[in-house]
Amino acid sequence: MLSFQELSAQFNQSFDTKHFPAAPNTLYAPGEYFLTIGGKRIRPVMCMMGNELFSDIHSDAFVVARAIELFHNFTLVHDDMMDEASLRRGMPTVHTKYDVNTALLVGDVMLIRAYEFLQNIQPSYLPKILKIFNRTAREVCEGQQLDMDYAKMETVTMDEYIHMITLKTSVLLAASLEIGAIIGGAGEKNCEHLYEFGKKIGIAFQIQDDYLDAYGNAADFGKEVGGDIKQNKKTFLLLHALSVANATQKEALAFQLKNEDPQKVEKVLTIFNECGVGAWAENLKAKYLQEAFDHLESIAVVSARKQPLIELANYLMNRNK
Amino acid sequence: MLSFQELSAQFNQSFDTKHFPAAPNTLYAPGEYFLTIGGKRIRPVMCMMGNELFSDIHSDAFVVARAIELFHNFTLVHDDMMDEASLRRGMPTVHTKYDVNTALLVGDVMLIRAYEFLQNIQPSYLPKILKIFNRTAREVCEGQQLDMDYAKMETVTMDEYIHMITLKTSVLLAASLEIGAIIGGAGEKNCEHLYEFGKKIGIAFQIQDDYLDAYGNAADFGKEVGGDIKQNKKTFLLLHALSVANATQKEALAFQLKNEDPQKVEKVLTIFNECGVGAWAENLKAKYLQEAFDHLESIAVVSARKQPLIELANYLMNRNK
Repeated sequence: MLSFQELSAQFNQSFDTKHFPAAPNTLYAPGEYFLTIGGKRIRPVMCMMGNELFSDIHSDAFVVARAIELFHNFTLVHDDMMDEASLRRGMPTVHTKYDVNTALLVGDVMLIRAYEFLQNIQPSYLPKILKIFNRTAREVCEGQQLDMDYAKMETVTMDEYIHMITLKTSVLLAASLEIGAIIGGAGEKNCEHLYEFGKKIGIAFQIQDDYLDAYGNAADFGKEVGGDIKQNKKTFLLLHALSVANATQKEALAFQLKNEDPQKVEKVLTIFNECGVGAWAENLKAKYLQEAFDHLESIAVVSARKQPLIELANYLMNRNK
Repeated sequence: MLSFQELSAQFNQSFDTKHFPAAPNTLYAPGEYFLTIGGKRIRPVMCMMGNELFSDIHSDAFVVARAIELFHNFTLVHDDMMDEASLRRGMPTVHTKYDVNTALLVGDVMLIRAYEFLQNIQPSYLPKILKIFNRTAREVCEGQQLDMDYAKMETVTMDEYIHMITLKTSVLLAASLEIGAIIGGAGEKNCEHLYEFGKKIGIAFQIQDDYLDAYGNAADFGKEVGGDIKQNKKTFLLLHALSVANATQKEALAFQLKNEDPQKVEKVLTIFNECGVGAWAENLKAKYLQEAFDHLESIAVVSARKQPLIELANYLMNRNK
């Protein structure tokens, strides 16, 4: 059985290749560019871990893992366009380095390419995996739409926010694990627990991500710190601050959400600190992490096999980038 | 056996339904909007015709036809963004009626929804059909990229142009027929001839489309006439005009391609007329149509079964919208 690190190394090695045909270069070179600027490759490794939880890694796990990573990168290329983000992992985004039309089409063809890899897996589980992949892909789009909608709304409840980030972030992590588990021959109940483990980890991961966007180090984080604040995004931090702030703080936050203040990030962070948002976020993250581990506990395999997933969770939760 | 008109009516009836879940409405209402503004539904009907050429229509043909029409509409939503087109079928495009970010995501989720319909077909031919669908989808993106590239290039050969429109337009028509044929139980050789029939029809169709963009009636055509000329698109008409024009005409065309003249459409059309571009296009269309019919002739089924495809070709070639 391989550790999380070993699985990562294996996947990264297999992924270090061309992902598109050579021509037309104007379409595929930007696609290859985006895939070489790095990334943690968490989702494909989770797919392999899902497989390994139940049996030795099947070659299809690499194929599906690749499809999942391409899908994820498709969402990043298009999300960067929607967010008007100039940097991703410290490098220019596709629409910045090339142009908007190219980025649009690069995203499209990356999504199609993901399906092109999927087509090659064993026909016995192709329909089942395709179904999960499709539903998840659609949910991720729904999450992105809700994210944009929420940015324009006056108020968003914590439940609405959790629903949105479940769609936007968690379901893909959960599906990556589940699809791997199907390749590994897992039964339905085990698949369900693994999916829930992934979902909870995903929410904890998003709490961390929101935290890092506000409190991370720009160089480590690979993108501008305070981006969410600048874009008036309803994050875990902002929603909590709004719910516990006093009248003065609430007014100041409301003002910042409606105006373009050059010191917006600094001022919002000051209120976050006054509201103890950092410690609250740490606690909430721990709660979801515990729920994730409870589901992992319920999966009917010997606990030694679960070790790589525990390593993964710890890696994700202690990351500073 | 059903005629082209009857198959169209059957498909249109089956397609007159909601194609997305209810929520989030901000994502799916714009998707439903675009699918209700009409369209000729040629591709899905071709899928059904491919099936019917070999056997009675299987319910999977409706499912795949629907996926194909959703795929086609995904390309239209994104193409309209890239072309900055404000109208489609006489109605506001998605990015015009809503906004660019919504249109981007509506296109994405429409593509995913196409795959979501595909997942439900018989597992026995799912891998084969998925493979053709994926390759075709990728080729359509390649065609769109080449189309954008060519708009920026000084010169494009007729061969390059035909390669581009084969990818952008023909392969989807060809694949629609072939996928239908697979559902109908066709053998490999028959599939190949049917695919080639579709490809040739597609090129003839594009010649017609280029012609109508320059010479069509705006009300019938449902989009602005002269759009290609305004965008300096290398069309069949322009490439031919450039190849037969005298020095004065060439200079005038070159000037128009480089400048924003408010009378651009009128002036370019005058040169087109002087060069006899209209009659030339009619001849070229007839040549591709003949090649298409030669392939249809080679398909090993009784000729009565081919009648709907002949009706289709005639419908497409005599259309004025």
